[in-house]
Amino acid sequence: MTNQMTNRKQTNHKHKTPVTVLGLGAMGRALAGAFLKAGHPTTVWNRTPGKGDGLVARGAVRTATAAEAVRASDVVVVCLYDYEVSRAVLGPIAADLAGRVLVNLTSDTPERSREAAAWAAEQGIAYLDGAILVPVTVIGTADALLFHSGPRAVYERHEGTLKVLGGNTVYLGEDHGLAAVYDNALLDFFWTSMSGLVHAFALAGADGVKGSELAPYLSALLSIFPPAIESTAVEVDSGEYPGEEAPLATEAVNVDHIIHASAHRGLDVGALSGIKAVLDRAIAKGHGADGWTATIEAVRGVR
Amino acid sequence: MTNQMTNRKQTNHKHKTPVTVLGLGAMGRALAGAFLKAGHPTTVWNRTPGKGDGLVARGAVRTATAAEAVRASDVVVVCLYDYEVSRAVLGPIAADLAGRVLVNLTSDTPERSREAAAWAAEQGIAYLDGAILVPVTVIGTADALLFHSGPRAVYERHEGTLKVLGGNTVYLGEDHGLAAVYDNALLDFFWTSMSGLVHAFALAGADGVKGSELAPYLSALLSIFPPAIESTAVEVDSGEYPGEEAPLATEAVNVDHIIHASAHRGLDVGALSGIKAVLDRAIAKGHGADGWTATIEAVRGVR
Ligand SMILES: NC(=O)c1ccc[n+]([C@@H]2O[C@H](COP(=O)([O-])OP(=O)(O)OC[C@H]3O[C@@H](n4cnc5c(N)ncnc54)[C@H](OP(=O)(O)O)[C@@H]3O)[C@@H](O)[C@H]2O)c1
Ligand SMILES: NC(=O)c1ccc[n+]([C@@H]2O[C@H](COP(=O)([O-])OP(=O)(O)OC[C@H]3O[C@@H](n4cnc5c(N)ncnc54)[C@H](OP(=O)(O)O)[C@@H]3O)[C@@H](O)[C@H]2O)c1
Repeated sequence: MTNQMTNRKQTNHKHKTPVTVLGLGAMGRALAGAFLKAGHPTTVWNRTPGKGDGLVARGAVRTATAAEAVRASDVVVVCLYDYEVSRAVLGPIAADLAGRVLVNLTSDTPERSREAAAWAAEQGIAYLDGAILVPVTVIGTADALLFHSGPRAVYERHEGTLKVLGGNTVYLGEDHGLAAVYDNALLDFFWTSMSGLVHAFALAGADGVKGSELAPYLSALLSIFPPAIESTAVEVDSGEYPGEEAPLATEAVNVDHIIHASAHRGLDVGALSGIKAVLDRAIAKGHGADGWTATIEAVRGVR
Repeated sequence: MTNQMTNRKQTNHKHKTPVTVLGLGAMGRALAGAFLKAGHPTTVWNRTPGKGDGLVARGAVRTATAAEAVRASDVVVVCLYDYEVSRAVLGPIAADLAGRVLVNLTSDTPERSREAAAWAAEQGIAYLDGAILVPVTVIGTADALLFHSGPRAVYERHEGTLKVLGGNTVYLGEDHGLAAVYDNALLDFFWTSMSGLVHAFALAGADGVKGSELAPYLSALLSIFPPAIESTAVEVDSGEYPGEEAPLATEAVNVDHIIHASAHRGLDVGALSGIKAVLDRAIAKGHGADGWTATIEAVRGVR
């Protein structure tokens, strides 16, 4: 039985692409764990030693240097704090990376991804830039959403290996910045919404309303979100923002009330004031009778 | 057949409370229309004459002055621009309102509602303060969410009439400010989210991503919202903000990337900078390793 298992493990390993993971933060550990679980020979490295004991116990090889780790596999997955750190780690080992496939799953801006791609091209490194849109607990499941961008041929060759990290892995296109573009846009919506959520609880809480009392109505409100996303997309693409039934000017008054109520309760109004300023600019540009999506005209062209 | 219908209509009218609606903006017209449809004798008034022709054609009585309109019914529903306008309209006709039930569905702050309640009490007017949480098209349907606050006995006596406006009509409590508290908090979440939504489309759009290309991923992201509302409510109520798997400090870096990417594309960063400032204050207060909900500690106590 033990022999059988060992044999099967070895057989699996023989057929799976060896993978190296650089960075064993919360996410790097989840990534390496998913590769191990899928039977990929997995080599790991982290700046601060001692991280990843659980991975080593499950069969990962841990190296003392990033260069050694890189030399162990044709596919190198990077998940670090940001691209400044990533540059600091990868720069000195460019010669070791040459000829291999580098997949950077660190989050940052599209500009940083495109810079990294230009650098990789100079060094002869095949480069994919990715982004992870799910928390660590979801990594390795069918639902996990990850984006990749860069050369289609490189993506397609390694799609099977990359899909180990998430069943919902999407290739966006040749422009290396695209994964970060989608990542940033989705997180823009998500974190702004979560900021509004916490603020809403603070606002109602100031008048004694418990989180548990407000939550059912907040949840009920979510039924408006899917049609709002759909109609906003159509309006953004057409550049037409119908507002007959809910004009921007009326909504600006609503936002003003929320700012007044918040300030009256000693709550922060920074984000709300930023939103109100955009509304005011949109109205000044003549969009007062248009719908909410017209604010995009005041979001753009600020510089 | 025509006779039968006329008879039934008259019979209905005899049993339904006569109602007056002050204000025939988009929402006032929808409210009056719902009362008419349910067979309530309906009297309407609007500052600018000529509005509400459709209502008059359907049987509403339109008066030249607000005082005349008020004297026609025991229940007076108000839906105006804001409470300043509402005070200007109602102040001079306090004597006409005395002894009747006034239901103010105008949106504003809890402070304005409480002031109005104090004024109504002095004038001997039975007062309910309400808020409408749905667009005009939903008024009069089973789904329409409206809040009421004020004396329970007054609400219960007129609940049947008020539910004509929306099947999901909720009484929140004796404090007249509560309807506005819930209204403001829900709209705080909603408009902040919608601001993030438009910003996300602008951000991705700057790199050539169409609204229709981004929308499916934004919609997919919504699956995280219900559990996020639930867990945020629990954390707000307990004052504990676990952040092991997604610490605030890491999320602040994410928000910073979005700000950089936005600024690089000439997009407004007012709201995002306000969010970042709250994150930074929360981290400075020692919440860097806590979860996102810990930002409530930096939203509160700003004054
Ligand atoms: N956690 C999530 O839920 C999640 C979700 C989606 C995307 N992401 C993204 O995944 C990336 C990693 O996140 P994480 O949660 O794993 O973060 P983390 O737990 O904070 O880990 C950060 C990693 O970066 C390394 N690092 C930091 N500064 C370094 C330096 N100067 N030189 C070398 N290594 C350095 C750390 O090494 P040390 O151990 O030596 O400090 C660690 O391996 C981020 O871009 C994040 O936005 C995370
Ligand atoms: N529309 C919606 O989808 C919606 C949804 C939820 C809540 N609400 C709330 O419902 C309320 C009314 O909204 P609405 O959409 O009906 O707004 P609206 O179409 O702009 O109508 C405003 C009303 O206020 C009156 N008014 C304004 N200034 C006045 C003054 N100085 N003196 C007398 N009357 C004055 C207007 O009369 P004139 O015709 O003479 O200008 C009109 O009747 C607002 O508080 C709004 O936030 C609206």
